[in-house]
Amino acid sequence: MFRLQHIVHRSQPVLHRMKSINSYLWQDARLKTQGPPVQSGLKRFSTAEAPVEAGDPSRMRERTLTMETLNPQVKAVEYAVRGPIVIKAGDLERRLQQGVKQPFTEVIKANIGDAHAMGQQPITFLRQVVALCCFPELLDSPAFPDDAKQRAKRILQDCGGQSLGSYSASQGVECIRQDIADYITRRDQGVLSDWNNIYLTTGASDGIMSILKLLVSGQGSSRTGVMIPIPQYPLYSAAISELGAVQINYYLDEANCWALDVEELQRAYLTAKQHCQPRVLCIINPGNPTGRMHLCQVQSKKCIEEVLHFAYEENLFVMADEVYQDNVYSSDCQFHSFKKVLCEMGPEYFNNVELASFHSTSKGYTGECGFRGGYMEVLNMDPQVKAQLVKLLSVRLCPPVSGQAAMNVIVNPPKVHEPSYAQFTKEKSSVLDALAHKARLTEQILNSVPGIKCNPVQGAMYAFPQIFIPPRAIQEAQSLSIAPDMLYCLKLLEETGICVVPGSGFGQREGTYHFRMTILPSPGKLEVLLEKMKEFHLRFLEEYSQQEQQITITNQDHHRQMSKQPD
Amino acid sequence: MFRLQHIVHRSQPVLHRMKSINSYLWQDARLKTQGPPVQSGLKRFSTAEAPVEAGDPSRMRERTLTMETLNPQVKAVEYAVRGPIVIKAGDLERRLQQGVKQPFTEVIKANIGDAHAMGQQPITFLRQVVALCCFPELLDSPAFPDDAKQRAKRILQDCGGQSLGSYSASQGVECIRQDIADYITRRDQGVLSDWNNIYLTTGASDGIMSILKLLVSGQGSSRTGVMIPIPQYPLYSAAISELGAVQINYYLDEANCWALDVEELQRAYLTAKQHCQPRVLCIINPGNPTGRMHLCQVQSKKCIEEVLHFAYEENLFVMADEVYQDNVYSSDCQFHSFKKVLCEMGPEYFNNVELASFHSTSKGYTGECGFRGGYMEVLNMDPQVKAQLVKLLSVRLCPPVSGQAAMNVIVNPPKVHEPSYAQFTKEKSSVLDALAHKARLTEQILNSVPGIKCNPVQGAMYAFPQIFIPPRAIQEAQSLSIAPDMLYCLKLLEETGICVVPGSGFGQREGTYHFRMTILPSPGKLEVLLEKMKEFHLRFLEEYSQQEQQITITNQDHHRQMSKQPD
Repeated sequence: MFRLQHIVHRSQPVLHRMKSINSYLWQDARLKTQGPPVQSGLKRFSTAEAPVEAGDPSRMRERTLTMETLNPQVKAVEYAVRGPIVIKAGDLERRLQQGVKQPFTEVIKANIGDAHAMGQQPITFLRQVVALCCFPELLDSPAFPDDAKQRAKRILQDCGGQSLGSYSASQGVECIRQDIADYITRRDQGVLSDWNNIYLTTGASDGIMSILKLLVSGQGSSRTGVMIPIPQYPLYSAAISELGAVQINYYLDEANCWALDVEELQRAYLTAKQHCQPRVLCIINPGNPTGRMHLCQVQSKKCIEEVLHFAYEENLFVMADEVYQDNVYSSDCQFHSFKKVLCEMGPEYFNNVELASFHSTSKGYTGECGFRGGYMEVLNMDPQVKAQLVKLLSVRLCPPVSGQAAMNVIVNPPKVHEPSYAQFTKEKSSVLDALAHKARLTEQILNSVPGIKCNPVQGAMYAFPQIFIPPRAIQEAQSLSIAPDMLYCLKLLEETGICVVPGSGFGQREGTYHFRMTILPSPGKLEVLLEKMKEFHLRFLEEYSQQEQQITITNQDHHRQMSKQPD
Repeated sequence: MFRLQHIVHRSQPVLHRMKSINSYLWQDARLKTQGPPVQSGLKRFSTAEAPVEAGDPSRMRERTLTMETLNPQVKAVEYAVRGPIVIKAGDLERRLQQGVKQPFTEVIKANIGDAHAMGQQPITFLRQVVALCCFPELLDSPAFPDDAKQRAKRILQDCGGQSLGSYSASQGVECIRQDIADYITRRDQGVLSDWNNIYLTTGASDGIMSILKLLVSGQGSSRTGVMIPIPQYPLYSAAISELGAVQINYYLDEANCWALDVEELQRAYLTAKQHCQPRVLCIINPGNPTGRMHLCQVQSKKCIEEVLHFAYEENLFVMADEVYQDNVYSSDCQFHSFKKVLCEMGPEYFNNVELASFHSTSKGYTGECGFRGGYMEVLNMDPQVKAQLVKLLSVRLCPPVSGQAAMNVIVNPPKVHEPSYAQFTKEKSSVLDALAHKARLTEQILNSVPGIKCNPVQGAMYAFPQIFIPPRAIQEAQSLSIAPDMLYCLKLLEETGICVVPGSGFGQREGTYHFRMTILPSPGKLEVLLEKMKEFHLRFLEEYSQQEQQITITNQDHHRQMSKQPD
C-alpha cells in the first residue's frame, strides 16, 4: 500500500544529484502527473511518445538552463501548500478515475483554502455583478436584480470604453478604489481611509510580493531582514527566498493558543540584527495556519499595541495580512484591524508607522480564489516611494478587472433596502455559520485523539494540530531524508486519500510536528474525514510502537514532544 | 499653453534630490493626479485634508522605506508605456472633465495597445462563454447559443467544484491547456504541440517575467545577459532591471524596415560577452513597437533560420514574443511561428534549442487586456527545471480563471457548423480588416509629413515613425534634462491632447528620435488624429527653426539625423 520506499528506490540515481528530497519529490511527482496523452478529435503528442526518449544523450546536448545554471533564488523557494504531497494527491485522484483500486474511494484535498473546490456555492449577487460586467447585454434582462445592474453599470462607467476588457489604471478602477476606502472607513468605525492609498492587486499574494520587492535591498549584513511568524503561510518564506532577503523567524506561543509575544519579537530582532538589517514585520491576523485571532479581547489589544510600539521603536515596516478578516468564529471575538489600533494609539503612531494591509476575494465568505482579486491599503508611505510602487505595478499593467469587480461586491454588498439584500445575507450567514460549526467540530474531534492536540480555531480556515510521532517513525523519515511530518502526511494520503500539508512546510519549533488542514469540506464530509484521521493516527502510533516494542519509551517521548515549549 | 517649464520650476527643490527627471516626473505627475477628494454618501478623506500637512517635520519622522533604502533594482525599472506622459494625459483628461479649458476637447490615448478603451467592441462569443462560466444559471437561458454553452460546460467540468472561483492548477485548467496544444498544432500545420509544455499565464507579461526569473543568475562577469531588440517593448528592459540581469541591445535595421540581422546579433553578443554571460535571446514577432513581420517571405525565413542557428551555436534560450500572431496586415505576409521554423530546420535544432513562446488574450482581434489571459509553450526545457518552474508558479497559485476561459475561446473558436460561427467570423474579420486599413492609413499620412518617416506597419498595433527634431528643440530638452522626443511628445499632448510614447522609452539609435503610437482609434478618429499630428509637427519645426533663424542649418541637420544608420 505504502509506496514511498519504492519511489525513492526507483529514482535513487537522480536523488544523488539533488540537494534535497524536496526538489526530488517536486520532480518525481511532476513527471508522474503528466499522465498518458489524452485522446480527442486531434491526436495529442506527448514527449513520452517521441521516437527518441527524453534523456537519450544522442538526442539532447547540454541545456542552457539546468539545475546548475538556474537562478539560485528560485531554487531556494519552497511552497508546501502546493508541494509534492499535493501533486501526489492529484496523481492518486487520476488513478482512481482510471479505475485503479485504492484503499479509499475519494481524494479529499484539505491542503488549500479553496472553498469552491470543496463544494461551497458562490454568492449569487457577486456572480451576477461580474456576469453583467462581462456581458452587458444582460443589463436588459429581467432575470437580474436592479441592485446588481446598478453595481455593474457603476463599474463599467469607470472602465475604458466601458469594457471589462480594457486595462484599468495600474492601481485599479477608480470607483472600486473609492468603494474600498469607504468600506475600510465603515469597518474601522470611522478611522478614515483615503482611496489614494488603495491599490487593487492580483490576489493578496501579488500585493505582498510587490511591497516586499520595494523593501529588499543591501548586501551582506545590511541585507533586508523580514520578520515572519512561525508557523507562517509559506508565501512569505517563498517570497523572501525569491527576492534574496533574510528570513527572521519569531515563534508564536502554541501553549498560549498561538499568541504573539513582544518579548519573542525582541529576541528574534536582536539575534537577527547581528547578521542583517531587520526592516519588515509581517503579521497574519486572523492567523494562517494557526487560526489565531490576535486581536480579540482587551488583553490581546494591549499585546498588539506593544507589537506596534515595537515596530515604531525599531522603525519596522508593518505588513498586516488581514485576508481572513471576515472569518471569525469565536463568539467573543471581533475583527479589529491593525490600522484601527494604530489610530487609537495616537497621532505619533498613526502618522508614522508604515503599514500595508492586504485583503482578498479568495477567502472570507466568498471564497472566489479563481478571480485573483485583492487590494492593499498603504499608510505613511513616502510619496516618492509611492510613485515608485505605481511604476512597478505599471509594468504588469493591471490586476484582472473581473477580479476587481468581484472585490467591489465584497466591499459594496447589497444594502438593507435593496432587492438582493435578503438573499445575500442568507447566503453569507450560511457560509460563515457553517465555517464556525466546522471550526468547533474540527477542534473537538482532533482533541479526542490521543497524540493530537489542537488549539481552538478562532478564525481563518485552518486547524494546525500538533501530532505525536513515535521515535521509530522519526528514524524511518530520517533514513528517507524527509521530515517526519512529511512521512506522516504521505502515509495519511496513501491510506485514507486525505491530503493535508506537513507542519514543516509552515515552520514549527524543532522537535514538534504538525499538519495544516482546512475546515472547508462540507460538515458531513469533514466529520468522516476527521474520524478517518483518528483511525489512521491510532494505527500509525500502533504500527511504529509495535515495530520496536518500545511502548513505554514512546509514552515518555510523547509527553516530552507534546509539551515542548519555547526555551 | 506649454507648462513644462512651470512644473520644473515649481518643484525645483525636489528635483535636486532626485537622480533623473524621469523619477521626478513620475512623482510629480502622481501627486497631481490624486485630485480633490470625491464627494459621495460617505465623506472621503484625502491626505490633503489632514490637520497637519504631509511633509511637516513635526508630524513625520524619517521613514523606513525611502528613496535611499528602496530596492535599487526597483528604482532602476523604467516603463514608458505607462510613464509620466501617460499620467499627465490622465491629469489633462480630468481637468477637461472639470471644465478647465484646453486647446482640445478630448485626450486621445494612443500610448497603449488597449483596443476596448479605443472603442473596439468585444467578440460576442468570447463574452458569452465567460459570462456563462461566471454565472452558470445562464446555461438554462435560451438567449445563449449552444456552442457557447458547450464551451462553458467543458471549462467548468475541469474546474474544482465546477466553479470559476476555485484555484486552477498552477499551470492552468487542464482542458484549456489541451485546447491550446491542439490550436498550436493546427497553426503550425501539423508540428505537434504537447499540452504538458503549455502553461497558462496572467497575460503574456507574467509568462515572460517567470521565464526570465529562471534564467537570471551569476555575479559580475558571469551575470546573465539578455539580448533584446532595439527598439523593444519596455517590459523587457523593466524585467531585466527588476531581476538584476544585464541588458544586451541588438539594433533592428530601420533602413531595412526594421529587419533582424544576424551579424548585428553577433556583434552585440561578442561585445557583451566581455562583461556578462549572454544566455537569452528575445525576439518580438510581429514586432512591438516596429510593426515588423520578421517571418514573411522566403528571404526573411532564411534570416530567421540564421538567427535560430546562432541561438543554437551560442546556447541561447530563445524567448519568442508572439502575442501579435493574429495581427498581420501585409497581404503578402502570413504568421509563421519560431517553433515551426525550428522544426523545419531538423531534429538537431528542434530537439535542442530551448524556446519559450508567448501568447495573450490582450491583442489579436479580441483585445481583452483586462482579463489578463495568456499562455506560454516551453520547448526542450530540462525536466528538473520544468519542475522548478511549476514550483515557482505555484507560489502565485494560478492565473485568473476567467482569463483562462477567455484564452480558451481564442484557441477554440466556433467551428464552421456551429451556430455562432457566422457572427464570430464577421466580428473577427471586421476588427482585423479595420486594423489593416488603419495600418495603411497611418503609414500614408505620417509619410506625407516633412520630417516624419514611417516604415510600413506589417503587423502588431503600432507605428514607430522617426521624427526630425530641430537642434534648438534638442537644446531646450537638454536644458530641462529630458529626452528630446519626450519634449516633443509632451508638447504634442499639451497642444493637441494626443498621447503617444517617446521613442526613448523603447530604445533607438543615438541621435535618432521616434514615438510609438497605436493604430487603434476608430478610422475617423485616427484620421483626425494624424492630421492634427501633421499640423503639430509643422508648427513644431517652424517654432524651433524660427527661434534661432537657422533654417539652413536645420535642413542640413534634418538630412543628417533622418538618414542616420547603423555604424
